[in-house]
Amino acid sequence: MVMLNRRNFSKFSIFALAGTRLPLFAQTPVADHKPVGYAAIGLGVISDLFIRACAESKTAKITALVTGHPDTKGKHYAAKYGIPESSIYTYESFDRVRDNKDVDAVYVGLPNSMHREYTVRAAQAGKHVLCEKPMAISSAECSQMIAACRTANVKLMIAYRVHYEPTHLEAQRIIQSGALGELQAFEGAFGFNAKPNQWRLTRQYGGGGALMDVGIYPMNEIRWLLGEEPSAITAVATTRDHTSGRFAEMEQTLDWTMKFPSGVVAALGCTYGEDMPGFLRIHGDKSSLELTNAYSYQGAHLANLGGAHVDTTTKGEATLHFQIQAEHFANCIRTGVEPKTPGEEGLRDLLAIEEIYKAAGTPIA
Amino acid sequence: MVMLNRRNFSKFSIFALAGTRLPLFAQTPVADHKPVGYAAIGLGVISDLFIRACAESKTAKITALVTGHPDTKGKHYAAKYGIPESSIYTYESFDRVRDNKDVDAVYVGLPNSMHREYTVRAAQAGKHVLCEKPMAISSAECSQMIAACRTANVKLMIAYRVHYEPTHLEAQRIIQSGALGELQAFEGAFGFNAKPNQWRLTRQYGGGGALMDVGIYPMNEIRWLLGEEPSAITAVATTRDHTSGRFAEMEQTLDWTMKFPSGVVAALGCTYGEDMPGFLRIHGDKSSLELTNAYSYQGAHLANLGGAHVDTTTKGEATLHFQIQAEHFANCIRTGVEPKTPGEEGLRDLLAIEEIYKAAGTPIA
Repeated sequence: MVMLNRRNFSKFSIFALAGTRLPLFAQTPVADHKPVGYAAIGLGVISDLFIRACAESKTAKITALVTGHPDTKGKHYAAKYGIPESSIYTYESFDRVRDNKDVDAVYVGLPNSMHREYTVRAAQAGKHVLCEKPMAISSAECSQMIAACRTANVKLMIAYRVHYEPTHLEAQRIIQSGALGELQAFEGAFGFNAKPNQWRLTRQYGGGGALMDVGIYPMNEIRWLLGEEPSAITAVATTRDHTSGRFAEMEQTLDWTMKFPSGVVAALGCTYGEDMPGFLRIHGDKSSLELTNAYSYQGAHLANLGGAHVDTTTKGEATLHFQIQAEHFANCIRTGVEPKTPGEEGLRDLLAIEEIYKAAGTPIA
Repeated sequence: MVMLNRRNFSKFSIFALAGTRLPLFAQTPVADHKPVGYAAIGLGVISDLFIRACAESKTAKITALVTGHPDTKGKHYAAKYGIPESSIYTYESFDRVRDNKDVDAVYVGLPNSMHREYTVRAAQAGKHVLCEKPMAISSAECSQMIAACRTANVKLMIAYRVHYEPTHLEAQRIIQSGALGELQAFEGAFGFNAKPNQWRLTRQYGGGGALMDVGIYPMNEIRWLLGEEPSAITAVATTRDHTSGRFAEMEQTLDWTMKFPSGVVAALGCTYGEDMPGFLRIHGDKSSLELTNAYSYQGAHLANLGGAHVDTTTKGEATLHFQIQAEHFANCIRTGVEPKTPGEEGLRDLLAIEEIYKAAGTPIA
């Protein structure tokens, strides 16, 4: 169930029609209850967005923090968001979260290669897990995470925020309405010009290159909108920048094609070496859509290609879809329904990522 | 030399800077001389644009027509554009154009599979040739055309109209200025939802599918802007529409990647089966550009991706760049300089097209 406060609900008015059709918005009104409590693991950029989003929510709340800097960053966030200092954990003491009754779930906002360990440890501590994408750095790790959560009888959701973003949901609604006809083809890309010396540029923490971190966005969205898994893949990887040292451990740019069992095809690109603002073009046999600014935190835009039937941009804070996402999982935990983006969704992306890297002749992890 | 009349020159004012840098605009002022005379072969949509463009020109003029319908279509065009009825030829009588002193060159606006024959016959009649793209339906045919023109000592130019289109030239100028930094990657596509029962949907006349007719646009433009030939290609072809009969002889949609010797990569798509408005995204390591409405006859648009440094649209009639193209070749004929888009440019595209079809496992011609 999504609790939209008055301020956020007004942001949503243009999506009223979409709202009535989507399970996300179609659940019964919220009863009075205690918010679901999250422990945020990692306090980087994305966790900061998640924490701010929960501060806006009545059904999801940050109740604990896990950080390598408990006395500085930890105390700062605890004071800012009203979290007791007794609920600040380090990576070493994290397992003690088991005894914290205010923590129902953990949010894993760590570098890719740490997702598996902290998801498994959270499950073993009896906590539900909302884990950032990519779910892990290999399909084998994904399977371990799914198994650990199943054994512990906790829910596992992957934070595919685009599935909770109003403009992307409007694209899905239009596709499902039949207005585009039968889907035929996609083009898309996402990437950015990465600064050197980041965890994402290392094999150890990134586990792969731009594909794993940013290329996953258009790939996952196509799989989601289409409801199919790729049956054939071609790919090419490249590095032009041999001087900055950024690409010592991974490719700079990767382009690939996918073909699906229905015959739908896609041409895609991703990079850490140049500006490549996120976009997705969706072609049906009747009409086409384009999402631009598609994978930024704010302001996704949807328009007809060559027409004027749709022209909508998500208004509001960058935290908006993080809040919807946090509340979706909170609702799943309370009501027992399965999340829209479970661990199996993350596993399927890793299986595709492994095939793409194989096709490109580029090693992974 | 480009002769811009007062009306057209005013359309060009926003490209003044580009104009000063490009050979197309940088030649010495035109002297008084007789316009170069073209025989238009074929009177379809594209020839109509070419004929209308020449009617606007002071340096290029339609002086003869070649058509299968001399008494109807032929006489109509002759009357409309002041062409003597004695200069209307059929495909059978075409070779007599040799004796027509008002004809300096032919414009080949025929279905793809007829380009070779009419280029060779025109050359043998001692006439220069401006041939539509794709140059032919195989690289072997292209080589024959180049040889025939060389033997006859006539010039051969391929009608890559985008090389003569102001907004595309502005993109080239920005790239050459260094404002994007070093080029890294491209995404692009072009296609349309083809009506059934057209020559382009037959192997006999089209010689290949959408790649040959529309996919060639972004592919050629990338080769042009980059100045390199692809060194590695991957491709996937597909057909979803098995009911309309349109794709009995060719693929519906084809997506492909290209890698160039420098390491630049591209992800591309083309189709005859769905709306796929032409676009090209050009990524450098400093900044990126996007061409939209890129391969329509009118209104190509250029913008920075994610910025506002460039935002320009070609104003004016669809004939504008056809006129610039016709005048460029007229000038080459008069002054003896080589065209910007000679037969060798067409041959290089066919070599790439053959590689793409081979990678897709799709037969060609």
